[in-house]
Amino acid sequence: VLRAVCGRNRVGAVDCKSNIFIFTAAIKKEQRMQKKRVTVLGAGLVGGAIARDLHGEFEVTAADMSHEALRRLKRDHGIKTVRGDLGDPRILSSVIQDADIIVGALPGSMGYKMIEVLAPEKKDIVDISFFPEDPFTLNKLIEKNGITVVTDCGVAPGMGNIILGYHNRRMAVSKYRCYVGGLPVLREWPWEYKAVFSPIDVIEEYIRPARYVENGHTVVREALSDPELLQFEGIGTLEAWNSDGLRTLIKTMHIPDMIEKTLRYPGCIEYLRVLREAGYFSYDEVSVKGVKIRPIDVTAALLFPKWKLKPGEEDFTIMKIIVEGNNGKGGERVVRHEWDLYDRYDKETDTISMARTTGYTCTAAVHLIARGMFTRKGICPPEYLGEDEDNFRFILDHLKARGVEYRLTSD
Amino acid sequence: VLRAVCGRNRVGAVDCKSNIFIFTAAIKKEQRMQKKRVTVLGAGLVGGAIARDLHGEFEVTAADMSHEALRRLKRDHGIKTVRGDLGDPRILSSVIQDADIIVGALPGSMGYKMIEVLAPEKKDIVDISFFPEDPFTLNKLIEKNGITVVTDCGVAPGMGNIILGYHNRRMAVSKYRCYVGGLPVLREWPWEYKAVFSPIDVIEEYIRPARYVENGHTVVREALSDPELLQFEGIGTLEAWNSDGLRTLIKTMHIPDMIEKTLRYPGCIEYLRVLREAGYFSYDEVSVKGVKIRPIDVTAALLFPKWKLKPGEEDFTIMKIIVEGNNGKGGERVVRHEWDLYDRYDKETDTISMARTTGYTCTAAVHLIARGMFTRKGICPPEYLGEDEDNFRFILDHLKARGVEYRLTSD
Repeated sequence: VLRAVCGRNRVGAVDCKSNIFIFTAAIKKEQRMQKKRVTVLGAGLVGGAIARDLHGEFEVTAADMSHEALRRLKRDHGIKTVRGDLGDPRILSSVIQDADIIVGALPGSMGYKMIEVLAPEKKDIVDISFFPEDPFTLNKLIEKNGITVVTDCGVAPGMGNIILGYHNRRMAVSKYRCYVGGLPVLREWPWEYKAVFSPIDVIEEYIRPARYVENGHTVVREALSDPELLQFEGIGTLEAWNSDGLRTLIKTMHIPDMIEKTLRYPGCIEYLRVLREAGYFSYDEVSVKGVKIRPIDVTAALLFPKWKLKPGEEDFTIMKIIVEGNNGKGGERVVRHEWDLYDRYDKETDTISMARTTGYTCTAAVHLIARGMFTRKGICPPEYLGEDEDNFRFILDHLKARGVEYRLTSD
Repeated sequence: VLRAVCGRNRVGAVDCKSNIFIFTAAIKKEQRMQKKRVTVLGAGLVGGAIARDLHGEFEVTAADMSHEALRRLKRDHGIKTVRGDLGDPRILSSVIQDADIIVGALPGSMGYKMIEVLAPEKKDIVDISFFPEDPFTLNKLIEKNGITVVTDCGVAPGMGNIILGYHNRRMAVSKYRCYVGGLPVLREWPWEYKAVFSPIDVIEEYIRPARYVENGHTVVREALSDPELLQFEGIGTLEAWNSDGLRTLIKTMHIPDMIEKTLRYPGCIEYLRVLREAGYFSYDEVSVKGVKIRPIDVTAALLFPKWKLKPGEEDFTIMKIIVEGNNGKGGERVVRHEWDLYDRYDKETDTISMARTTGYTCTAAVHLIARGMFTRKGICPPEYLGEDEDNFRFILDHLKARGVEYRLTSD
């Protein structure tokens, strides 16, 4: 096989030394043209895994403010990196100029703004940032620009939506339950927890009121409420409590009973409730010896270093999704589908489970868009991705090929 | 009997209007001359109660930085008050110039320094500040000035020492146990606690390593360790854990087993351990968004308002002191004395129990000194006060007259 003699010739086409060069350069250009270009905004735990997974099939650029986060992607994987403050709209626009598709893996506080800023660039976006705003308030803007914006495209929110979107098209769903958690294998008192994604977004789960649906009505409960103990094979007992995880499903689904709960090792919920009650999660400034300070920032300074996974520390993701309803075939009989995920840290590639389960759901969506398999325009929460049988199977296969397996039990 | 002729006549001795006036003024002056003058430094929860209790039999001056704290003493009780920063040695010296006896009721962080500063003034001192330093390091200074300085003269430390001092002179004590707590009657999640004395000193109990004596050896354990559940009649179950309460007893007593534990409603110890572990009790500065701040100061800003007793809120003091040993009369038989205190908030005078139990022990010591019943010079921890039978009975009677009753069970 013929291979290239000269690399990218930056000095221009002054003297190409042989015909062979011209030929291979043409092939390379063709490959480059075929390869879609993806810019991944945010190269944290999950963004980094997304960049690595897309790298190869796509021409990937990873952008982040942190030199540290980018270094490994560049050095170990040869991924193109750009450093800059992605909170600055001009920098944001400049780093995605070459992209065909944009992946948003920024902290939740930056996600909505990023989509708003980049919409006029008319590039499809897949976002996993878990932003607090209602994405549908951007729908007009997105539709006007004729692009696809998939939001919440991780494991939870994400895969739960995809699975429910699939079943909802095929049966009259009466009940949806999602239990999900990302936990360290090693339990260390008192938190028995490590932040497997942006730690400020972890705290959001402890303070943002949780919305669920009961008997057709939206119910709002405080976060960390209604704890219940559940058994998981090979893991033991975990504690589930209300967190605001249904998000778009409340709008897009007309199912009388829906709930999402977060899983943690039993007991630590109590400590979190105490911290919240004490005011340590508050964004309201307090005066401390004449200095105005937000308690949440003090908590960030104290706890985030403790909540950081140590190098090589193992985590796992556990998820149980229950969809009940009537499939129209068995009369009044209730059909129950239970999807179970138990995924572990990947030693070989040093990729944490939360990055795998969240990131590979996101990369599946990138593939669907790049291949023209998902073409719906506007704001598209993941439940839309799951509606089509082929797309649904593609996502499951994509995940399974990476060792992330959802096991279905139906009865 | 004929006494002095004119009282302090501020307008001068121009025209004394009648013999009757001259006569009564003379009696008044006599009374004033007989009355000893006490300056109470610190007019907080406990200091205020001390000032009120001494007022009448003594000529009392209450000094504090807080106008609020002094207002009630002046308005409702006619006690002379002086406002000033008692952390300033010059102000400290000036406010005690008229005093015969000084009472120290400042926060623990100010107690040692206060004694050091005021020693050259050659006035006897009774202190309840619970300062962290070893008082005996001041002994030379105190002896040189020929004065009596009673330290730790509250309920705990204080009454435990007095009781042990009493028994230690009368039997070979082999074991000393002190369980003590000051708690709100109303239990409110999560703390089920109100700071019945200086809240920063409350936190000291949660972080200062606890020293106790086991088999003749001093043992150091972290605060909040070794929780045990105990039943109290009329109260229910309380949780006891190691706190650094033995203090001078470790030096002054040669008893092979001694321990002091603090009592709280069960469970809250766990939350305190979590806060400590998280770093919220730390005095080490952390950088929060470019500002250096001590987490303990943030905790003070957040929790101290929550730990403040509401007006009229009821507290109680519970204490159980167990002294075991051989009294020399029954051969090898172990004699056990158990002293129990259960004191409640006083509605009539709106005086919290902790102020009663701590403050009236302190005022008993003031009386002993004023009456010449306790004349030992140097640093005198309360165990010295209890050695003499008459003094011991005086203290118990003084407390009982104020409704603070220690019940003895011996077997």
